[in-house]
Amino acid sequence: MEILTIETSNKTYPVYLGQDALALLPGYLKEKYRSARSILIITDESVGALYLQRLKNVLADIEKELHVSVVPSGEKAKTFDVYYSCLTQALEFGLNRKSLILALGGGAVGDLAGFVAATYMRGIPFFQIPTTILAHDSAVGGKVAINHEAGKNMIGAFHQPEAVFFDLDFIASLPLKEVRSGFAEIIKEALIVDPEFYSWLTAGIQSLEHVDMQQLAYAIKMGIGVKGAIVKQDEMENGVRAYLNFGHTLGHAIENSLGYGSITHGEGVMIGMVFALKLSIRYSGLNFNLTTFINWVDALGYKTKIPSKLNADDLLAAMKKDKKTTGRDITFVLLDQVGKPVIKTLNDDEVLTEMLPMFENKR
Amino acid sequence: MEILTIETSNKTYPVYLGQDALALLPGYLKEKYRSARSILIITDESVGALYLQRLKNVLADIEKELHVSVVPSGEKAKTFDVYYSCLTQALEFGLNRKSLILALGGGAVGDLAGFVAATYMRGIPFFQIPTTILAHDSAVGGKVAINHEAGKNMIGAFHQPEAVFFDLDFIASLPLKEVRSGFAEIIKEALIVDPEFYSWLTAGIQSLEHVDMQQLAYAIKMGIGVKGAIVKQDEMENGVRAYLNFGHTLGHAIENSLGYGSITHGEGVMIGMVFALKLSIRYSGLNFNLTTFINWVDALGYKTKIPSKLNADDLLAAMKKDKKTTGRDITFVLLDQVGKPVIKTLNDDEVLTEMLPMFENKR
Repeated sequence: MEILTIETSNKTYPVYLGQDALALLPGYLKEKYRSARSILIITDESVGALYLQRLKNVLADIEKELHVSVVPSGEKAKTFDVYYSCLTQALEFGLNRKSLILALGGGAVGDLAGFVAATYMRGIPFFQIPTTILAHDSAVGGKVAINHEAGKNMIGAFHQPEAVFFDLDFIASLPLKEVRSGFAEIIKEALIVDPEFYSWLTAGIQSLEHVDMQQLAYAIKMGIGVKGAIVKQDEMENGVRAYLNFGHTLGHAIENSLGYGSITHGEGVMIGMVFALKLSIRYSGLNFNLTTFINWVDALGYKTKIPSKLNADDLLAAMKKDKKTTGRDITFVLLDQVGKPVIKTLNDDEVLTEMLPMFENKR
Repeated sequence: MEILTIETSNKTYPVYLGQDALALLPGYLKEKYRSARSILIITDESVGALYLQRLKNVLADIEKELHVSVVPSGEKAKTFDVYYSCLTQALEFGLNRKSLILALGGGAVGDLAGFVAATYMRGIPFFQIPTTILAHDSAVGGKVAINHEAGKNMIGAFHQPEAVFFDLDFIASLPLKEVRSGFAEIIKEALIVDPEFYSWLTAGIQSLEHVDMQQLAYAIKMGIGVKGAIVKQDEMENGVRAYLNFGHTLGHAIENSLGYGSITHGEGVMIGMVFALKLSIRYSGLNFNLTTFINWVDALGYKTKIPSKLNADDLLAAMKKDKKTTGRDITFVLLDQVGKPVIKTLNDDEVLTEMLPMFENKR
């Protein structure tokens, strides 16, 4: 079992990472949250069907009231209606300021449950129990949010969890598509902060179908380490935390334009990273073998081209709407070197010149 | 012009209090918020009709985009629908993370606008421009919220304003009913913290129809001082901040049972304070001449009895539902002495014994 520590200006909390990490949860709650009389588990339909009973079993002797809200799977969990209905249920269940919320699921459930916790009675404690690799990123750092029709994650808060219980048993049965989605963020974390970890990844991971649990645990641990180090410096995303958006400017635009769910987050981010690497080579002097990178991630099963049914103008408009952008030009996270990110603002021409050759050939 | 300072663990901000305090706003925004390109003013129909043009005139040369959202007056501003529509407008107006929100109005507008600011893109800066005496309390300290059908202020956050501009010119034309509502909170602040200020109030304020501006400015300044001192010790209401709920347990229950708007907040709180003083004499050893107090506030135009159309069981149920209550008994803020509050939990019998004689005679 690994115990990582996340430090922010107001709060320090542990991440328990390992097989059967969940077994530590009841003792932790009993010891540190004695005055909590009730717990609300928020999970989604898919994860609930697989793992809710296991979590209930683990908490069988906790001697607190256990309530459950089951929300739709994926981004459908992050609507205003679902948010409101979770709040209504929390009130009906009689949760008070000392009650606890447990987020059991992937990033969407964690984002929703965290925002419910952030705003219920002006904020109550919550715990992240991620069930995907992708959620190693979102479960740490306290960014919680729901979506607005006009854009993803537009309504949210910074609300740190009390602790993260990352049980690798959940990961063992993850579909390949989800492994791939989560692994893209790990590659991102290596690229923006840690050349050595990046070398380890490229040398050691040649297929996502055959990652052994030890390698995976190490990769997730390193990813969380990168995330934690950045959050420690800049909890509220006024500076370096923006580096975590490497690959996300185009990635979000692709997800958004295809409709959320048509492509996984990590798959979108991978295309965005290829683009950001191209921009970095062109406008930021990055010395990097892009062909080697593309061959590597291609072997891992990622797409690296923009789907042909999208068009450049729409993507440009979507990138400008993205909240990370404050002016008319588009702000990108680029790399001066692997491990040395930098914020650069590019105009439409500069963006289009590099983007147009990235489209898949139309068939 | 008085400049008061509010200190919290993460933020220190000024309260400008005085006639024409608003004149300081454009310079303040220009100097400290250069990168803000747009401003959203949130006000309500009544306040907007009276003062929006004045605020726009003050900001005429600010060189930032000015947008306005006008919301319904009173508690109707604090619904989920209004909250959502403010967020939608903010997105349509193109507000980004550097944009500013100005809350122009009473407590309800401040609570709503503050919660919009707290959650728009995970939090943007906002300013309180209170237009009532009552809002001297809510504009300071960062508690922002909206209502849920199941209860007032159930959904919210702690989000401190960047600054408060409390322009006494707004107060000069306030209807007597609103003066009375706001003054109840000032009396509360004196009772829980400052015997000397309490003596000043009882000696100097014999009518709310003839308070002169200098007296009023002093009373508001002292009230904000009490509020600021408590917020400094306990921003997140884990301890002493709860003392500010003196009079509010029964006060909220009365407001809630009558329907919000039938009685002003301060009028409800005054009845709640009379009750809390009775409980304090009985259960907390408070040495206090309640008859003198009742005569004084009666002369100021307050009711001190529970309206006869309410009934004790409903009020008891409403108090238990109030979020300040965590168990089956009811938690009250009582006074050991004037200036020495204490938290006491009382059972139904103890509460009813003192409450029943407080009802108005049925006619």
